[in-house]
Amino acid sequence: MFIRDSWYVAALSSELDEKPISRMILGENVVMFRDSQGAVVAMADKCPHRGYPLSLGTVVDDQLVCGYHGFTFDCSGTCVAVPGQDRIPSRADVRIYHLVEQGCWVWIWMGRGEADLAKLPSTPWLTDKENWSMVSGVAKIDAPYGLLVDNLMDLSHETYLHNGSIGTPEVASTPIEVEVDDEAHVIRVYRHMTSVECPSFYSRTTGLEGKIDRWQDIEYSAPGFYLLHARIAPVGQPPLPDGSDDHAFHMKIFYGLTPSTKDIVFDFWALSRDFCVGDTEIDTFLQTMQTGVVQEDVDALNILQARSLTEIEPTEVSIKIDRGGLAARRVLNSLAEKELDGYSVEQGERSTLNV
Amino acid sequence: MFIRDSWYVAALSSELDEKPISRMILGENVVMFRDSQGAVVAMADKCPHRGYPLSLGTVVDDQLVCGYHGFTFDCSGTCVAVPGQDRIPSRADVRIYHLVEQGCWVWIWMGRGEADLAKLPSTPWLTDKENWSMVSGVAKIDAPYGLLVDNLMDLSHETYLHNGSIGTPEVASTPIEVEVDDEAHVIRVYRHMTSVECPSFYSRTTGLEGKIDRWQDIEYSAPGFYLLHARIAPVGQPPLPDGSDDHAFHMKIFYGLTPSTKDIVFDFWALSRDFCVGDTEIDTFLQTMQTGVVQEDVDALNILQARSLTEIEPTEVSIKIDRGGLAARRVLNSLAEKELDGYSVEQGERSTLNV
Amino acid sequence: MFIRDSWYVAALSSELDEKPISRMILGENVVMFRDSQGAVVAMADKCPHRGYPLSLGTVVDDQLVCGYHGFTFDCSGTCVAVPGQDRIPSRADVRIYHLVEQGCWVWIWMGRGEADLAKLPSTPWLTDKENWSMVSGVAKIDAPYGLLVDNLMDLSHETYLHNGSIGTPEVASTPIEVEVDDEAHVIRVYRHMTSVECPSFYSRTTGLEGKIDRWQDIEYSAPGFYLLHARIAPVGQPPLPDGSDDHAFHMKIFYGLTPSTKDIVFDFWALSRDFCVGDTEIDTFLQTMQTGVVQEDVDALNILQARSLTEIEPTEVSIKIDRGGLAARRVLNSLAEKELDGYSVEQGERSTLNV
Repeated sequence: MFIRDSWYVAALSSELDEKPISRMILGENVVMFRDSQGAVVAMADKCPHRGYPLSLGTVVDDQLVCGYHGFTFDCSGTCVAVPGQDRIPSRADVRIYHLVEQGCWVWIWMGRGEADLAKLPSTPWLTDKENWSMVSGVAKIDAPYGLLVDNLMDLSHETYLHNGSIGTPEVASTPIEVEVDDEAHVIRVYRHMTSVECPSFYSRTTGLEGKIDRWQDIEYSAPGFYLLHARIAPVGQPPLPDGSDDHAFHMKIFYGLTPSTKDIVFDFWALSRDFCVGDTEIDTFLQTMQTGVVQEDVDALNILQARSLTEIEPTEVSIKIDRGGLAARRVLNSLAEKELDGYSVEQGERSTLNV
Repeated sequence: MFIRDSWYVAALSSELDEKPISRMILGENVVMFRDSQGAVVAMADKCPHRGYPLSLGTVVDDQLVCGYHGFTFDCSGTCVAVPGQDRIPSRADVRIYHLVEQGCWVWIWMGRGEADLAKLPSTPWLTDKENWSMVSGVAKIDAPYGLLVDNLMDLSHETYLHNGSIGTPEVASTPIEVEVDDEAHVIRVYRHMTSVECPSFYSRTTGLEGKIDRWQDIEYSAPGFYLLHARIAPVGQPPLPDGSDDHAFHMKIFYGLTPSTKDIVFDFWALSRDFCVGDTEIDTFLQTMQTGVVQEDVDALNILQARSLTEIEPTEVSIKIDRGGLAARRVLNSLAEKELDGYSVEQGERSTLNV
Repeated sequence: MFIRDSWYVAALSSELDEKPISRMILGENVVMFRDSQGAVVAMADKCPHRGYPLSLGTVVDDQLVCGYHGFTFDCSGTCVAVPGQDRIPSRADVRIYHLVEQGCWVWIWMGRGEADLAKLPSTPWLTDKENWSMVSGVAKIDAPYGLLVDNLMDLSHETYLHNGSIGTPEVASTPIEVEVDDEAHVIRVYRHMTSVECPSFYSRTTGLEGKIDRWQDIEYSAPGFYLLHARIAPVGQPPLPDGSDDHAFHMKIFYGLTPSTKDIVFDFWALSRDFCVGDTEIDTFLQTMQTGVVQEDVDALNILQARSLTEIEPTEVSIKIDRGGLAARRVLNSLAEKELDGYSVEQGERSTLNV
């Protein structure tokens, strides 16, 4: 079951223009495009007439014209024209979705009711272009959402799966601390590595050599938003008591985990850094590196999922590094149950009203 | 459920020679070839021995030899040789199908009983080569038969899906008239456009320029034969009361709708024209154009079907242009029910006989 | 249902080195590699942690390290290291399989209990390299195991499917003799052809021309081992009463039939000959020819299986040449039932013990 009352990343900002694109999100086909003012628009990607994908149509004068028989919709989803007659049938409107564009990402509200803007994740590092430089991308994984959550919550896999790029021996060998905020449904996992190997991509971008202190602090806001606060610094130079941290280099690693179907998930990512700001050569280098890292995850999860389909009874042996992932599963289950309860209540109320 | 007691187009005439080909029609694997006299032959494409497709065998002396162990069948489906012994087992014969070749098409009778030649569609425009010139082709669509019926019964889609070739704005905007002959299970849809844009392919082939009168009269004989009577003429020059129509140009657009499986349909087509007769350059031009038009339908229906598989409850909003398609669905359902009833009666009789 | 209490060919000897490979055998994912001494090792290809295939890991110091999070196993399947902690969890060991390497083939015991070495097939012609020369290969077939048994038990198909290489008219036309040893679950099929055409590959390798005597004696040890004793000799020169047979040329054609899933089977093969021993040019010639012959079987069985999936009720007409195949089916059913009974008894005993 999907958790619907939440914001998910629907698209990279760069993916949207006047030509409609289609994306299945939480089992729903959504068509997205920009109107003539540049505003992002999303609606159900299905013509009410005969079900043809509206994403195969064209946008004319801020109206989306179906490519099969010409049913036409304005940006509020209202049907404004049909072929062969002047009268517009009732029931021909399409559902629209609330979108919010923040930096390189476009968020969508997938809940049944009004979009809850208070729940929209805050991502200042994606919009403050003066102090932060950013690259982004998206990959599609043929695996359920849960496998990607498992993957991201346990970074010990960097040592093995991403060996040669971001992985070093100490990521796997360093114990973690885990905190869970059940109310906010946020799981935090801290891994503070002291006097450890500096991955070559950090040497290249920061100029640091030899041993470093390296922190990886995960902040996962279930269900769809994951933020890794990465900090590297010369050995023995922690942030000052007042919070200032000028000796260190910071990177924010964002993941938007957007279920497509129950067996497919979109893996949106973005990297923001407070060093080499504005250096487009470093942009290109990091874009290429992270695309490769994400592809290693994609390959691994695709394989894991294909394997799981041949398993009669999947079993697991969990250890201490799995505490973050296990906490995430518990929080996700709780959110799903809460939503199911809410929906039952709602249905119950309706029944009462109908009586 | 398939409607079996009917003729369907099984092959283009040009597809058949001494090398057997296989085609699944109404869920049955059929092998077809020509004997040494050029006559078309069809039988069940399955060796009774171990089920190997006979279409992978070879025709030797008008006998089809299985490519696995050599079981051999004459053109009446009788098994005439098996390996390792002289005695031919009973039950080793294969079913044959009645074929009729008419112009560029080969028809097959898929009913349980004797082929009913009275039901064979009449297609004089495919055989009268003195007065008509003809091109033909076939495409396979990964969609149920019903989606192709919907497509052909509502030509308003020409304006959008076939924009740039056969589609002009007036096709979608012109209202239609519908007639249903329930007894003959024929649906007729008339669209008479007056003083409208001439599609470029008609200008090129007829020499007409500027506005024209353009008629599209559909005659669909459910389940498998669709004929579009197309007429274009200078504005204001209808056929004379005696039926003569020398000022006009006529094209007959044929479709053979042949279900393969419940999710696949063959889309046989042919174009016959009474102008530029014998002009092979125009033949090539129309062959290329119509192949492109059909491919646009194939693409659309493949997409529509792929989409429908992700829908929990498909919904539709129908308008006036859909009356032809809705009538066709009603007639097809009635035919299917009638056949089911007939089959039940037959089964009932058998039960009685067995008692 | 698979017959588990048996040896199956798991790999060609040449497929195994220090890099792990994965193969699904009887529905179980198995990882195989060689340790630093060259010994062959097999274990369950699934990390107990999160199910990642161990075959994607690496062998370091005779230990297999998982490529996802680094769980590490020695060659006895014991887990010896996990990330982030020193304590090794119980239940983290993986199952190992008993392998035996004999000539070009590596056998695996797939039974639930201890490997029964008494049941291991004897294949002296694969190890006596002084008197026999050998080539081998493996193919994967998208068809159930039973279709390959059918194929190999009825060699009349050589005449049609392998026409042009090993097939001649007399293979199909010559009657067979069949013997069944139910106790040893061995089926023997004899086809002795007298004064028949010499296939060109035998002419080329033996120098025989014109008519020959050709024997094909099948010895199928159900479920997984098939041996064809091929003998060709000048006409009228049978083996002497003392068993010596110096005028003849002998070839042993081995098949290891290893079910992968219920719909996939591995077709391991090997050819051993007592002529042109040590001639590597003949090796290459026979390797190429047999690879082609096996591919013809693969293609035919893939097609047959694809076809069978479209059949509602498969039917068969059997004749005399099918007696070997029908006997094989009977013996295989009996073996499967016996194993099912044994398992039930075992379960029954367990139940008693639990009471």
